[in-house]
Amino acid sequence: MEDLIIVDGTQYSNWGPDIYEEMRAGGVTAVHVTLAYWENARETLSNLGRWNRQFEQYRQLIMPIRRIADIDVAKQSGRVGIMFGLQNCATIEDDISLVEVFAALGVRSMQLTYNNQSLLAAGCYESDDAGITRYGKVVISEMNRVGMLVDMSHSAERSTLEAIDLSAKPIVISHANPSFFHPAKRNKPDAVLKALAARGGLLGLSLYPFHLKNGPDCTLDEFIEMMLRTIDLMGIDHVGIGSDLCQNQPYSVLEWMRNGRWTKATDYGEGKADAPAWPKQPAWFASSADFPNLVAGMRKHGLDDDSIRKVMGLNWYRIFSEAEHVSDHSIY
Amino acid sequence: MEDLIIVDGTQYSNWGPDIYEEMRAGGVTAVHVTLAYWENARETLSNLGRWNRQFEQYRQLIMPIRRIADIDVAKQSGRVGIMFGLQNCATIEDDISLVEVFAALGVRSMQLTYNNQSLLAAGCYESDDAGITRYGKVVISEMNRVGMLVDMSHSAERSTLEAIDLSAKPIVISHANPSFFHPAKRNKPDAVLKALAARGGLLGLSLYPFHLKNGPDCTLDEFIEMMLRTIDLMGIDHVGIGSDLCQNQPYSVLEWMRNGRWTKATDYGEGKADAPAWPKQPAWFASSADFPNLVAGMRKHGLDDDSIRKVMGLNWYRIFSEAEHVSDHSIY
Repeated sequence: MEDLIIVDGTQYSNWGPDIYEEMRAGGVTAVHVTLAYWENARETLSNLGRWNRQFEQYRQLIMPIRRIADIDVAKQSGRVGIMFGLQNCATIEDDISLVEVFAALGVRSMQLTYNNQSLLAAGCYESDDAGITRYGKVVISEMNRVGMLVDMSHSAERSTLEAIDLSAKPIVISHANPSFFHPAKRNKPDAVLKALAARGGLLGLSLYPFHLKNGPDCTLDEFIEMMLRTIDLMGIDHVGIGSDLCQNQPYSVLEWMRNGRWTKATDYGEGKADAPAWPKQPAWFASSADFPNLVAGMRKHGLDDDSIRKVMGLNWYRIFSEAEHVSDHSIY
Repeated sequence: MEDLIIVDGTQYSNWGPDIYEEMRAGGVTAVHVTLAYWENARETLSNLGRWNRQFEQYRQLIMPIRRIADIDVAKQSGRVGIMFGLQNCATIEDDISLVEVFAALGVRSMQLTYNNQSLLAAGCYESDDAGITRYGKVVISEMNRVGMLVDMSHSAERSTLEAIDLSAKPIVISHANPSFFHPAKRNKPDAVLKALAARGGLLGLSLYPFHLKNGPDCTLDEFIEMMLRTIDLMGIDHVGIGSDLCQNQPYSVLEWMRNGRWTKATDYGEGKADAPAWPKQPAWFASSADFPNLVAGMRKHGLDDDSIRKVMGLNWYRIFSEAEHVSDHSIY
């Protein structure tokens, strides 16, 4: 399938030419990269500045996706398209006007929470979940208006169900797996996945070992079997890939992701005090160069070309297009 | 001239529907509005947020100019096109990557200084002028790359001459008058104006009383005679209007413009301690509704339609188009 479009719904790798070359080797057409976790508005601007530097330096390898149709340009030119997302709402602080400002800067999606309670919703590590907040409700509406996708990957269950209902447009869980596969706090129960699909949303299946049955020892067959069961549950139009690859990142980055500035104690997130480090990737998905293994696995398990196209990229393409299409001409 | 395009190169009015209606009454096609004086990056984002609110609320009256060709859309739809500029470099702080980030947000021009020494150059109120700084040189180059116009309205003479030379593209003095007309610190000597024009630049003639001979008592004939002499000096392609109208602004805004956070004492700028307030506009240019008076004056003094078109808008249109045309496809 020369014309296969592969869209990875989430990565946070240590970006540079080596990673881009691996992506090209793996046939990745576009990747949705995390722009910020705990960074405030000002800090996120500098993160954007660093990305602009990458676009300037590696223009033969990557390009910014300004409009979703640019994914086709990336495909034709053999470059990797870069799309921006936020894994938390720290960037917009308490200022609703920043939703549109960061949309104008190319931010296509925002998680309402990152593990903890945020100004918008409850994170999946909180013991209680009071649902979407007052600010959260108006932010969801504003995100709908300006074309920014709501992402509930790191959110708690009630908040997620409410966001699915409140959003006028389909939302996503960009990188997680079903709880039936592996009952991690970050994975999602059937009820959430069904509600997500019923409103047109998408689940990006994660290759992050903490989200996999048996972690790094999870086999490709087990992963694809889980994919098939998820497709049965949600429908072929509602499943994609959000690999959650965090390649070549030092431990300090993992500490930032887990602890930000919110705790003086060390929070180990999905890790443990005696095993705090980055987990090892499964051998069949060690880097972006291994996307063809997923395609081979899907084919081996009987998925036809149309289904492979949808799961590998077209579902993401569709949902980003739906989010981008806004009726309000006041926006950028 | 039904098809006359009027572009005002600088205004900082107290924006709202009354002002927009006056602009439409005066035939203004597009206005270049000041987004920030002393505001840092984060604060400028909130200023943008307030503008987005205006676009949402008054979409029948105004529209954002995303590409300069949108000026034609504004003309055809009878709305006023809004273009953003910075009257200082506080917004980019000490971070060169913010030039591109704010260009992506629609900032089309930036003054290297506002009266005082900045990180980039010397302001026109400094007693000494050491020229363009190290950071200033790389920022000019970056502005050229991303399509942001260099504006030296509030800069000192040596810095201005150096910026004219250093910039790969024509630059502007968006709102000032020749010193021969009125020897204010903010007005410009012939040598600067000649150098500006020789490199393709533009002077926006100011209607701010402190820049006018006899202040509010300046007559329309005197203003047009000055315009004609400036055209003789610089050429018909290098003169436009930058009215510097600051309509309906409270005194607190003038204080912010003059003092920002940089002084505890009160600086009166072009005013005086015993006359600190906003100056009175000349009777023939009290608001944007009075642009037709300028056209009538130009016609009375013998300027032909082509010349009127250039000075009233097409010169601004051209220089913004030249700035916008960038060869570097890495940018937004």
